Amino acid sequence: MEKEPLLMLPGPVPVPERVRAAMVRQAINHRGAEFGAAYAACVATLKKLFGTNNDLFVISGSGTAGMEAAVGNFGRNRKMVSLINGKFGERLWKIGERYGNVTAVPSDWGTPLNLAALESALEEGAEVVTMVHNETSAGIRNPAQEVGRMTRKYDALFIMDGVTSIGGDLVEVDKWGVDVAIVGSQKCLAAPAGLAALSVSRRAWERIGKELPYYLDLAAYRKNAANSPMETPYTPAVPLFLALKEACAIIEEEGIENRVHRHRQMARAVRAAAGAWGLPLFPKTDAVHAYSETVSAICIPEGISDKDLRGTVKKLGIEIAGGQDHLKGKIFRIGHMGAVGAPELIATLGAVQYTLRKCGLKPQDDGVMAACEVLG
Amino acid sequence: MEKEPLLMLPGPVPVPERVRAAMVRQAINHRGAEFGAAYAACVATLKKLFGTNNDLFVISGSGTAGMEAAVGNFGRNRKMVSLINGKFGERLWKIGERYGNVTAVPSDWGTPLNLAALESALEEGAEVVTMVHNETSAGIRNPAQEVGRMTRKYDALFIMDGVTSIGGDLVEVDKWGVDVAIVGSQKCLAAPAGLAALSVSRRAWERIGKELPYYLDLAAYRKNAANSPMETPYTPAVPLFLALKEACAIIEEEGIENRVHRHRQMARAVRAAAGAWGLPLFPKTDAVHAYSETVSAICIPEGISDKDLRGTVKKLGIEIAGGQDHLKGKIFRIGHMGAVGAPELIATLGAVQYTLRKCGLKPQDDGVMAACEVLG
Repeated sequence: MEKEPLLMLPGPVPVPERVRAAMVRQAINHRGAEFGAAYAACVATLKKLFGTNNDLFVISGSGTAGMEAAVGNFGRNRKMVSLINGKFGERLWKIGERYGNVTAVPSDWGTPLNLAALESALEEGAEVVTMVHNETSAGIRNPAQEVGRMTRKYDALFIMDGVTSIGGDLVEVDKWGVDVAIVGSQKCLAAPAGLAALSVSRRAWERIGKELPYYLDLAAYRKNAANSPMETPYTPAVPLFLALKEACAIIEEEGIENRVHRHRQMARAVRAAAGAWGLPLFPKTDAVHAYSETVSAICIPEGISDKDLRGTVKKLGIEIAGGQDHLKGKIFRIGHMGAVGAPELIATLGAVQYTLRKCGLKPQDDGVMAACEVLG
Repeated sequence: MEKEPLLMLPGPVPVPERVRAAMVRQAINHRGAEFGAAYAACVATLKKLFGTNNDLFVISGSGTAGMEAAVGNFGRNRKMVSLINGKFGERLWKIGERYGNVTAVPSDWGTPLNLAALESALEEGAEVVTMVHNETSAGIRNPAQEVGRMTRKYDALFIMDGVTSIGGDLVEVDKWGVDVAIVGSQKCLAAPAGLAALSVSRRAWERIGKELPYYLDLAAYRKNAANSPMETPYTPAVPLFLALKEACAIIEEEGIENRVHRHRQMARAVRAAAGAWGLPLFPKTDAVHAYSETVSAICIPEGISDKDLRGTVKKLGIEIAGGQDHLKGKIFRIGHMGAVGAPELIATLGAVQYTLRKCGLKPQDDGVMAACEVLG
């Protein structure tokens, strides 16, 4: 039997059948009432997940398009600072470089952000700060609340990539003072890849740039969202909106509190398994940094190759992620985001445990049982 | 019975069930072999439809994103000229304005382009020319071959919006000397909305800009397309790629020559109906301009309102398009692109003919029968 692999990646993630089935129907006019209502329904649920009353738009493009929309509308010709401790922090900085004057504040991947350097940059007049909330490349959660407090103190704009946290972990855009937050569809929302959503604060609108990109022009998004029926400025990826609407309905049925609890429980279960195996987690946390609740990055033990590890797991029908860039071969990552739960996680940890043993490691304890203890 | 309306618009168009069904399956990893093969299959068919051996990429974004990719990669800080005789010509000019130095060469919508003014601009050193091949807002087909000849003579780059011609009408990117051509998924390809594809000539690559957008950075598209498996630089809209692959398979089965013939036959049928009704077509053609083969723009007769006309047709389950911007109320447009054929067209023309009569017009002849004569 040919069967789809189980994707336990930090995106894309398995998409519930209801959500996929929403895409099958015949094309509808994106300037009509039905599309407008679907868009509005997505926005209503996403605002709850973002924890915001700000304007919110859905863009037909990936999370990276959302990141560029943020930087391109609010960062051009402004003094920007990019906090970096992983691949996606780097990406925001690279996008910043296309739009002008950006300073990188780098830390080693998976180590705490340099908040002292951020404060110095703000004292020296930085106007826009970018940060990745949940850095999947390293499995670390960065301190959005602290960075929000600092950017408010210095009256800078705060752009937060919440691509892989929003919809899984708790996010409070308004409480934290996030001016622009971004999510991707194929992560914690458990919808197909291809959409991003952004929230924009009133402070951000007051500072929108004079030279905007065209397709990602957020002023155009705002203007068209005010139409009745609600519209996007250019042709949207209609099937993906219909799928996202269904994914949002599932989220409403579960309830946001339950959803966050489920993600955190899965994260604790994976950490319990890693502990039982005697394998250290990759990120270095401190008082304000924490382990990601949606993806776990675990060090690969000496003597085991990434290829053997992930290859053996894949033969059992499960895809987990390796390290990116210089972390290739050093870590493996288990995504636990979206619609997955105990069965998928037990299967994944079982396959990893089998693989570790097969590769010659003698784990101290039974990680699968330790995880079940948390999940039960 | 609630039934989907029949969309006889210049996009979105009805999508065959096979194509829609391709989106239902479980999410796949976009860095894997299966996605790479699907992307490659789309590119292979699209190259035939474009008539090109140039590099070709599929972008997760609308036709407008494709237009911006062309201008943003090859037009920034260059002397651009935008030929305009409709809404989408205007759009390319507006995008050009975001990227620097662009001169509009406007004609009234639906009237021939001012090629003499283009030649003057080229003599004065214009480096990039933009033109819409099939201007749906006015139902006119612009002379790509002539413009290609002129841009080559003056060694300028030629950006051609083929969003609503490629896949329906004959396009010969290489023969005509088009440096960048763009198509949208939800038009003649009869795939869902949300993707664009671009071809890029060697001459264009040699002149790629130094400051590129990020999400639409075509150098990044080229780099990732060379990977094995073939990849996009950022997460693609996977379900839409799988649907496009199926749409391309249908196109291969039909054959490109047959497909072009079918579109031209439908266009002739609509023109025969308009003639029978005594209603003039909107565009003014000349030796090199022609009526669009994928959408027909027809003048609304005195005394009939757009609302009555399209409203009555809609009550019969069919959506046709009105005029855009200043043409609202003056014309109506029938899209005949993609997967539709004689049945859809006969139904549409029947509904329009009924409406014209109901609104008090006494058509000279029977347009439906005249159309059947062409389609039979």
